[in-house]
Amino acid sequence: MRIARIAHPEGVAFVTVEGDEGAEVAAEVAEHPFGNPTFTGRKWPLADTRLLAPILPSKVICVGKNYADHAKEMGGEAPANPVIFMKPSTTVIGPGAAIRLPADSSRVDFEGELAVVIGMPCRDVPRAKAKDVVLGYTIANDVTARDQQQADGQWTRAKGHDTFCPLGPWITTGVDPADLALRTSVDGELKQDSTTSLLLHDVPTLIEWVSRVMTLLPGDVILTGTPAGVGPITAGQQVSVTIDGLGTLTNPVVTR
Amino acid sequence: MRIARIAHPEGVAFVTVEGDEGAEVAAEVAEHPFGNPTFTGRKWPLADTRLLAPILPSKVICVGKNYADHAKEMGGEAPANPVIFMKPSTTVIGPGAAIRLPADSSRVDFEGELAVVIGMPCRDVPRAKAKDVVLGYTIANDVTARDQQQADGQWTRAKGHDTFCPLGPWITTGVDPADLALRTSVDGELKQDSTTSLLLHDVPTLIEWVSRVMTLLPGDVILTGTPAGVGPITAGQQVSVTIDGLGTLTNPVVTR
Repeated sequence: MRIARIAHPEGVAFVTVEGDEGAEVAAEVAEHPFGNPTFTGRKWPLADTRLLAPILPSKVICVGKNYADHAKEMGGEAPANPVIFMKPSTTVIGPGAAIRLPADSSRVDFEGELAVVIGMPCRDVPRAKAKDVVLGYTIANDVTARDQQQADGQWTRAKGHDTFCPLGPWITTGVDPADLALRTSVDGELKQDSTTSLLLHDVPTLIEWVSRVMTLLPGDVILTGTPAGVGPITAGQQVSVTIDGLGTLTNPVVTR
Repeated sequence: MRIARIAHPEGVAFVTVEGDEGAEVAAEVAEHPFGNPTFTGRKWPLADTRLLAPILPSKVICVGKNYADHAKEMGGEAPANPVIFMKPSTTVIGPGAAIRLPADSSRVDFEGELAVVIGMPCRDVPRAKAKDVVLGYTIANDVTARDQQQADGQWTRAKGHDTFCPLGPWITTGVDPADLALRTSVDGELKQDSTTSLLLHDVPTLIEWVSRVMTLLPGDVILTGTPAGVGPITAGQQVSVTIDGLGTLTNPVVTR
């Protein structure tokens, strides 16, 4: 099942997206998509609506240096345990929305990532049960002001600017995240080409690790880290992240 | 005005707290305390209610090394610009609620701090207008697993455990935050004794700095940093942070 959030002619709604590419239909979900969603019966051709970020998370937890080749390109070793950081919820934007480059950074990078969307309140989730707390998977771009990341030591400012967490195009349920091809391109030029099978700490391990620290709530998002190939984006470009089975997340880049 | 959140015999509410110490009355606010709050007319003796965290923030932004003496005791220089990090909203607890020590940390420290509560959606707030976006001030304890802070580099895990952000006892409006005495004690023994006049980056500067990065929403909280004197807390102890004019925030410490 594919769960999206859309702006339709009469408002905003969670929907499921059914049908083949180019002829998708959005079927309105009553209230929220957690548990066993029910439907209102209203439907729209997806093309007549606008996709929004598929979820508004109460928190976005990210994992640093979780692919060996990216840890290497950043000039460091991969840490033995997952290193987590956060992006404020105000960073979240949907597909097609503009990434806005802040005036006080001279280098903003894309980072394509697999994102886990949590489906129920949980804490102390063992690896073996991690799958049970997942609503589904989507695509994220962990946009980063690289100069600010290096200057501050803590990464919150560098990764916390408004618009720095594109999510989407939708949440896909029933996916095995163990080996999904991930590609990022800028204006059509391939920049990252990897697979989630290269995650140093896999999705169940990350859920166990994070939920040992903090309670996760429905809609919370875990960004699993980015592979090698990160690089700058500049105003006027378009950045696309594609994950097999999850779709493509495309965002234009503009100056703030 | 003092704004609190309480559990009363019939539910949970925002209230204002009126009257002298020991004889306070809680007057129920209709809906929320932002803008020009109105009252339902219901009142309770405060002693018959239980204080909760005065606000449930969408985000908690914290500032590192914002007192010179604390930067020194941590073995570093104070940074030229504010260094920000986040605590997840799931860390927030109220006065009297237990700080729960995680099993995987051997050293958890208290950090008494002045906390700013934002009153309206805002971004790019200049120093001179910072006062206009503040709802009021409260007290925070930026509880920190010191060993995890040192191990991880990023501070999110160390500072992100459930219960690691006591807030309260209430939000006081109309306060000038420029020179408020701040004291932290553990089981009655004075550990931190400072004043907010020693903040390296004062409250207006922090609001300007943070809101240049991210949109702040009503109820968002900025923790302004802790002075020297931080130290460990262990199960069975009580930690109290007092700020002149804002009250005292006391929390017991237990093993998780």
